[in-house]
Amino acid sequence: MSAPLQTCPTGAMIIGAEPVIGTGKEIRSSDPRTGAALDPAYPTASAEHVERACALAAQAFPVFRATTAERRAEFLERIADLIDKRQDLLVERAHAETALPRPRLTGEVGRTSGQLRLFAAELRAGSWQGARIDPARLDRVPLPRPDIRQRRIALGPVAVFGASNFPLAFSTAGGDTASALAAGCPVVVKAHQAHLGTAELVARAIAEAAADTGMPEGVFSQVVGSGTDIGAQLVRDPRIRAVGFTGSRQGGLAIAAAAAARPVPIPVYAEMSSINPVLLLPAALGSRGAELGAAFVGSLTLGAGQFCTNPGLVLMVEGPGLDAFTKAAADAVATNPGATMLTIGIADHYAAAGDAIAARDGVDELACGSRSGDAAGGCARLLTVDGARFVADPGLQAEAFGATSLLVRCADIAELTAAVSALEGQLTATVHADEADHPLAAKLLPLLEERAGRILFDGWPTGVEVGHAMVHGGPFPATTDPRSTSVGTLAIERFLRPVAYQDVPAALLPAEVQDDNPVGVWRRLDGEPSRDALATESAD
Amino acid sequence: MSAPLQTCPTGAMIIGAEPVIGTGKEIRSSDPRTGAALDPAYPTASAEHVERACALAAQAFPVFRATTAERRAEFLERIADLIDKRQDLLVERAHAETALPRPRLTGEVGRTSGQLRLFAAELRAGSWQGARIDPARLDRVPLPRPDIRQRRIALGPVAVFGASNFPLAFSTAGGDTASALAAGCPVVVKAHQAHLGTAELVARAIAEAAADTGMPEGVFSQVVGSGTDIGAQLVRDPRIRAVGFTGSRQGGLAIAAAAAARPVPIPVYAEMSSINPVLLLPAALGSRGAELGAAFVGSLTLGAGQFCTNPGLVLMVEGPGLDAFTKAAADAVATNPGATMLTIGIADHYAAAGDAIAARDGVDELACGSRSGDAAGGCARLLTVDGARFVADPGLQAEAFGATSLLVRCADIAELTAAVSALEGQLTATVHADEADHPLAAKLLPLLEERAGRILFDGWPTGVEVGHAMVHGGPFPATTDPRSTSVGTLAIERFLRPVAYQDVPAALLPAEVQDDNPVGVWRRLDGEPSRDALATESAD
Repeated sequence: MSAPLQTCPTGAMIIGAEPVIGTGKEIRSSDPRTGAALDPAYPTASAEHVERACALAAQAFPVFRATTAERRAEFLERIADLIDKRQDLLVERAHAETALPRPRLTGEVGRTSGQLRLFAAELRAGSWQGARIDPARLDRVPLPRPDIRQRRIALGPVAVFGASNFPLAFSTAGGDTASALAAGCPVVVKAHQAHLGTAELVARAIAEAAADTGMPEGVFSQVVGSGTDIGAQLVRDPRIRAVGFTGSRQGGLAIAAAAAARPVPIPVYAEMSSINPVLLLPAALGSRGAELGAAFVGSLTLGAGQFCTNPGLVLMVEGPGLDAFTKAAADAVATNPGATMLTIGIADHYAAAGDAIAARDGVDELACGSRSGDAAGGCARLLTVDGARFVADPGLQAEAFGATSLLVRCADIAELTAAVSALEGQLTATVHADEADHPLAAKLLPLLEERAGRILFDGWPTGVEVGHAMVHGGPFPATTDPRSTSVGTLAIERFLRPVAYQDVPAALLPAEVQDDNPVGVWRRLDGEPSRDALATESAD
Repeated sequence: MSAPLQTCPTGAMIIGAEPVIGTGKEIRSSDPRTGAALDPAYPTASAEHVERACALAAQAFPVFRATTAERRAEFLERIADLIDKRQDLLVERAHAETALPRPRLTGEVGRTSGQLRLFAAELRAGSWQGARIDPARLDRVPLPRPDIRQRRIALGPVAVFGASNFPLAFSTAGGDTASALAAGCPVVVKAHQAHLGTAELVARAIAEAAADTGMPEGVFSQVVGSGTDIGAQLVRDPRIRAVGFTGSRQGGLAIAAAAAARPVPIPVYAEMSSINPVLLLPAALGSRGAELGAAFVGSLTLGAGQFCTNPGLVLMVEGPGLDAFTKAAADAVATNPGATMLTIGIADHYAAAGDAIAARDGVDELACGSRSGDAAGGCARLLTVDGARFVADPGLQAEAFGATSLLVRCADIAELTAAVSALEGQLTATVHADEADHPLAAKLLPLLEERAGRILFDGWPTGVEVGHAMVHGGPFPATTDPRSTSVGTLAIERFLRPVAYQDVPAALLPAEVQDDNPVGVWRRLDGEPSRDALATESAD
């Protein structure tokens, strides 16, 4: 038996069932308010530690993927229960490491456990298995048709790189881990340096849940590293079969390039960069410009602007309401007290990226909020440019990860359309439209569909529902793979592949494609969705 | 209006609605029996031709993807009708270019049109749209839940590289083209040099069907090129959003590398290399060794061995029946008259690849058939090696595309298991098992699932059913993307991506996610599959 798992951070990684102290250079998370290094120190993993985590994951894989959906659901629910039980501890540690407000972190604990429970429910519902049966047709001419059945199986061990901005919901037990475990894939997490203690606490909860529910050793590990060595080793390890990543464009592209260069390339699901355009259509702008301006800044400054879906771009046409919107937004930004960003590095990058946009030809600064005196302080910032310039200068689409937004004033609808057409891929696109705007919205909608994973009307993109219909993804550079989502139940499909069974004897068939449908899943029988048993041919 | 489309090959490409004669170097297909060049000559495309095909595809895309599923179904059916109507012409031309027997080619015409009709039916059934609705919950605390709906949309223009070995079913109007068009993606085909005339005839049928059914110009083009320039230009063109390829490992890897190196990387579905292991379990071998040997050589030599699913590897354990199997197989190979291969190049590669395997340590030659006197003649060949050697030497897994197979004699079940564990990714894995073998088969099945896209029992892998449950795909190097199939209705998903709609006004929603389900598709309502209308909240 392993030593009893602790509930306060000790500086350990989790490798298989065991807490393990690294042997490399010590790293620490720090308090973004003061820059002070936090205890405990985390000695980084050696190459042997990563090797062992991958070896254990590969060893766990055949056992774990063969567990029933019900058993994996219980595992996920147990993780959720332990995370909920340790809410206070998690919130305190995450608050120390990220300076995110406690209510936001409390919500994030609930989101994290809720997400795990949603995948448990999805596992039991079973549509994810993609079961299909084309029964034999022995009387077909010229040749009889064989019996063919299909289901999806897990890809293999998955490497997960957590996000800086959601220390819980997009990190150690976040959406990537939850969907990979649901699919039957063991997970090796590289903990984010910005919240090592939170990561350790969550990793311990996962390891404890794995032990409680009898999951094989190696189903989950978490390693700690600084720089890119440990991450690169993970991505290159032949036993790793897919990667989930949330972070910078630079980081995502480096991982995707490493994965493509492997002797056996693997899928990379990297969520990277998005400026989340907001379109204010003329009637809406005219009828509620000032109101939109204030609400926009509320979304812009939420979480110090550090949401992947932060509205970094506003597109509108010169006309009634534009000045009212601009004034209201500028006033709100100017009086914004500023906020502590997640890390000093993020705050530095944010300031530099905003300066770079502000320095481009034709860009004017409309307003700048206060900067908090904290080490990682950041200030809200509003820039503006005209539509023609925006269309001509792709550099204006750079992401400044934080509360900076660029207001684009288009001369007319044609210029607005050109600006939309010039957009790179996005996680979201938001439209504010009154009923009189609907004909224009109908024309713009197809352009937005081609450029974004989620389109929302008359709301704000920050805030991502976790459900069945959510898409948190989108064309490059929002992600490296627009065919999927990292939030919501569809995310499980990222870690599955189809297998067909031809004339496989009944006794050897997986449960979900057996004639009598013992697990009660939805299947396509000769193409038609059904939960019925397969009508078997009369024996006489 | 365009000039009336011809029904015999003229040396033209199809760019948009027009036959176009290239301006580059002339290339020709040749008769594999004699090596004689066939008329007409095909001048290759210039960079401008490729540019124009891509520009037209991009222009067609928004119009084409917005057509209803019903209209796209009619387009596919019209292509199928025209292909069927021109069966005799197609068979004659394909026979001249490939030397494949006329009955095989006649069957392939039916397979090609049948495949198009299956996708038409799938379009009408509508499950492919992946519609999901999570209705709003305005009373949820602490925050109301927005209305979120999801559907899948087309990725964009697709480049298709046809296969040498199926001049119809995996070529100009083959599975890649059919599934991409079904998804709403315009297609630009690079015709295979081995069957330029067949490719032109089929391309004309597609162009004619597009005109007949009112599809936008650019929905389909076909270009001709020699070497890799034209193909590389296609893969790098920013308007191309996905690639379908069937061919050699070298070709597929080059395309995948080029696609990954684009400023905006795109998915590549390359079906490449597979040796399709056949496992003969002890009881089956003992009870019907000789019978299996004869049947095996039937599958091995079908189509001169030029099937992606050709059984290039047999794994068995020393014991009763092994000698009978080996003798029957060797006898059948020794008396095989040989066959004309698809091209002189393929025949040369085949001979060299077989020689390379035969020259490896521990490999013995069991039998060699006759070589036909044709220019592209090839002979069946049977090699053998022991299990320990096979496990130790990955070079023995090289594909010799043709009728060469390697019989692996394992000392015991442990060595057989080790040999299976050592396998690279495969399109298929075949098991011959009597009832007494089922316990062993149950142990091997998970290993085969992890290594193959399709597992079949007591049959032969050559012959791929086109249906809902088929998987023609598998782990690398069988394909570059194991998450999909290139045959069967699931193939449509390769060319789609999900989009979410949050609080989008009812009047602007796509039909498949409207409340009343006007197109009658299966959807997931709060996760539960249903074809019902959405129950709307009472208005009072």
